[in-house]
Amino acid sequence: MFEFTVQHQQGRARVAQFHTPRGAVTTPMFMPVGTQGTVKGISPQELLDIGSQMILGNTYHLMLRPGEALVQAHGGLPGFTAYPGPFLTDSGGFQVMSLGHMRKITEEGVTFKSHLDGSLVHLTPERSIQVQEALGADVIMAFDECPPFPAERDYIQRSLERTVRWLDRCVSVKTNDHQALFAIVQGGIHEDLRQQSIDLTLPFETPGFAIGGLAVGESKAEMFPAVAFSAGLLPDDKPRYLMGVGHPEDLVAGIALGIDMFDCVYPTRTGRFGYALTDDGRLNMNSSAPRKELIPIDDTCECYACRHYTRAYLAHLLRAEEMLAPRMLSLHNLRYLHHLVERARTAIASGKFHDWANEWGERYFKGKIPEWYQQALATGAGQRV
Amino acid sequence: MFEFTVQHQQGRARVAQFHTPRGAVTTPMFMPVGTQGTVKGISPQELLDIGSQMILGNTYHLMLRPGEALVQAHGGLPGFTAYPGPFLTDSGGFQVMSLGHMRKITEEGVTFKSHLDGSLVHLTPERSIQVQEALGADVIMAFDECPPFPAERDYIQRSLERTVRWLDRCVSVKTNDHQALFAIVQGGIHEDLRQQSIDLTLPFETPGFAIGGLAVGESKAEMFPAVAFSAGLLPDDKPRYLMGVGHPEDLVAGIALGIDMFDCVYPTRTGRFGYALTDDGRLNMNSSAPRKELIPIDDTCECYACRHYTRAYLAHLLRAEEMLAPRMLSLHNLRYLHHLVERARTAIASGKFHDWANEWGERYFKGKIPEWYQQALATGAGQRV
Repeated sequence: MFEFTVQHQQGRARVAQFHTPRGAVTTPMFMPVGTQGTVKGISPQELLDIGSQMILGNTYHLMLRPGEALVQAHGGLPGFTAYPGPFLTDSGGFQVMSLGHMRKITEEGVTFKSHLDGSLVHLTPERSIQVQEALGADVIMAFDECPPFPAERDYIQRSLERTVRWLDRCVSVKTNDHQALFAIVQGGIHEDLRQQSIDLTLPFETPGFAIGGLAVGESKAEMFPAVAFSAGLLPDDKPRYLMGVGHPEDLVAGIALGIDMFDCVYPTRTGRFGYALTDDGRLNMNSSAPRKELIPIDDTCECYACRHYTRAYLAHLLRAEEMLAPRMLSLHNLRYLHHLVERARTAIASGKFHDWANEWGERYFKGKIPEWYQQALATGAGQRV
Repeated sequence: MFEFTVQHQQGRARVAQFHTPRGAVTTPMFMPVGTQGTVKGISPQELLDIGSQMILGNTYHLMLRPGEALVQAHGGLPGFTAYPGPFLTDSGGFQVMSLGHMRKITEEGVTFKSHLDGSLVHLTPERSIQVQEALGADVIMAFDECPPFPAERDYIQRSLERTVRWLDRCVSVKTNDHQALFAIVQGGIHEDLRQQSIDLTLPFETPGFAIGGLAVGESKAEMFPAVAFSAGLLPDDKPRYLMGVGHPEDLVAGIALGIDMFDCVYPTRTGRFGYALTDDGRLNMNSSAPRKELIPIDDTCECYACRHYTRAYLAHLLRAEEMLAPRMLSLHNLRYLHHLVERARTAIASGKFHDWANEWGERYFKGKIPEWYQQALATGAGQRV
C-alpha cells in the first residue's frame, strides 16, 4: 500500500505509479479541487471521462459544513460525492489562515471564527487528523502553519519548527493504516529555512512529502528556485506534492523539477470567469473575437465542450449567463491540465521531455520564454542536487 | 414527413408516433425548454440519457442574442446546441407579451424594446417565420397574440381574429417544406371564443395545432375545461400541443384529455430553486429534513442524481450554493416528467390509463384529488366531444 514505483526518469522528471487503497494513480498528476465535496459544476462521471485520478477535498470547509460525521455516514468522501477513485484531503491549516476570521495561533492549534456563521472553531493537529479520518481520503495531510507572503524570517523559522511539532502530534494520533499521512515542508523562499524544515521533517519517513508555503503571493522567479531546492532534498522514492499549484506553465516547470502531484482551483475558477486554457495561452471567451469563431476552443482536445461546441456557442452561453458556460469551461480546463501532464509523461517515457517542454513553452509564451521557466528546465535536466 | 400515427388509444388519451425530419418522437411527450440555446445546466448527452425527444427553443431570445444568423451559420439549432434530435421553436409572440418593454401591438405586428439593451425591435408574422426558418427547428409556431389573464372578452375576440390573420401571413411566407408550421388557437377560458378560434383555424390544415393562451394566471379549475373543450374540437389525426404546461398533474390531466405535446420551464426552474419532483409531490430540498436523509430523491428514478446521490448530499450542495445542485435537480425533474409520460404511455397501451392516473393522483395529491383533476380524467374517459 502507498508503494511509489518510478517507471521512467529523465533528469529529475519522472513517471511513477502511486498505489492507494482505491487504486493506483500515475504521476505526475493534477488533482482537481472539490472544496465542498464537489469539483464545482462537474460530475464524477465527467471527472473519470477527462482522466482525473485523485480528487482533493478541503477539511476546513467540510468540517464546518456539512460536518465530517455526515460524510463518514456515507462511508467517506467516495460515498458522499460518488467519485469512485482515490481522494486527498488537506489539513485545514492553509484554509484557516486564508479564510478564518480573527484567527489566533498558539502551540495548541488555531482558534478562528467560521466564515459561515461566525461561530468559534478550534483546529488542532489532533482534530485535523480526526476529521480527515472521518472524511476517509486515501492521502491525508499533516496540520501545518503556512505563513503569508511576505513574512519575517523569524516568524517563518518559528512557524516551521512548530509545523514539525504539529507533524509529530499528527503522526501520534493517526489510527488508520489505509490512509497515507504526508508531511509538509515549509520555509518560504529561503533556502536555509527550507533546508532546516526538510532536515527536521525527513526523519518522520512519511509515505510522501508536500512542499507547502509557495504560490501564496511570491513571483514565479522567487517560487521556482525554492521548488527546485526543496524537491532536490526530498527522497526519490516518495511522491513529491507541490501544494496549490497551478497554472499550466507551473505544471511543466514543476514536473521538470521532479514534482509528482499538483492541485489548484485555477482551472475551474478561471473557467467560471470565462477563460479557456490552451497551448497558445489563456483564451478570453468574454472578448468579442470568439463570438464569431465557428471552431472549438482546441481541436486537439477530447473534452465534451471541444467535441461538441464552437467558441461562438460557448461565448454566447457566457454572455447569456447560462450555467452550461462555467460548466463546460471548467471541464475543458481540467481536461487541458490532465492532457498536459499526460503529454509530459509520454515525453518523459520516450526521453524527450526537455524538447517537448521547450517546444510547449515556445508556443505558450509566444516566443518569450521567461527566465524562471528556462532555469527550472535547466535545473531539472542537470545533475540531481 | 410530419406523419402522425396513433398507435394506442384509451378514451381520448393516445400514444402516437410523430415523424419529423430529425427522427420520430413518441407522444405524449414533454419538451424541455432551451430558451437561450441550452436547457439550463444540462448537456445534450444528458438530455438523450434521460429520454428527451424534442427540445424547445425561444425565437424571441435567440433573435435578440446571439441573433438567428449565427445559429443558421451553425446549421441551425442542432449544430449550434449540439442536440442531435428534433427541435420546436415558439414564434416569439408570447415572450414579447411577457418580456418586451413598451410593446405596441398593431395589425402589422409588435414593436417592443429589447429587455437586453432597450433597442427597438419589430416582430411580425413574416419576421417570426424568417427567424424560425433560420433557427431551423422541425416544428415552428405561428406568430400569435396571447392575451393576458384576465382580459376583456372583446379584446380576446379581436385578438383571436388577428391571430388568424397573422396565421394566414405566416403560412404565406413560409418557404421550407422540412419545417412543420403549427397553428395556435386562442380564446381564453371562454368556450364560445375557443370555438370561434378553432373554426377559423382548422381550415388552414396545418400539420399540428397548439392550444395557446392558457397557464397564464387562471386557476386549474378554469384552465382544464378550456383544454377539454379545445382538444375535443381539434382533429384526431394531428398532434395537439398544450403550450407552456406544465406541472406533473397537468401532464396527466392533459394526456387524459388527448394532449400530445407539452413544454414548460417548470422542472428546470423549480430545480434551480431547490425543489425535486416526486410521486409524493414536490420535495423541498432546502428544508431541514433532507439534510440527514441517506436515501436518493426517488429510488425508482434512473437519473444520474438518483443513481449516485443521497438527499443529504444534494441538500448540502444546495446550502453550499454549489453549481452541481441546480444541475442535478434540473436533471432529476426533467427525468421525472419524461418518466411520467412514459408511464402514461405504457398505461394507455395496456388499457389501464385511468386506473393508473387515479392511483398516481391519489398518491400525488395525498388522498385529496382536486375536482378539476377528477373531471379531466372523467371527460377524457367519456365519449369524444
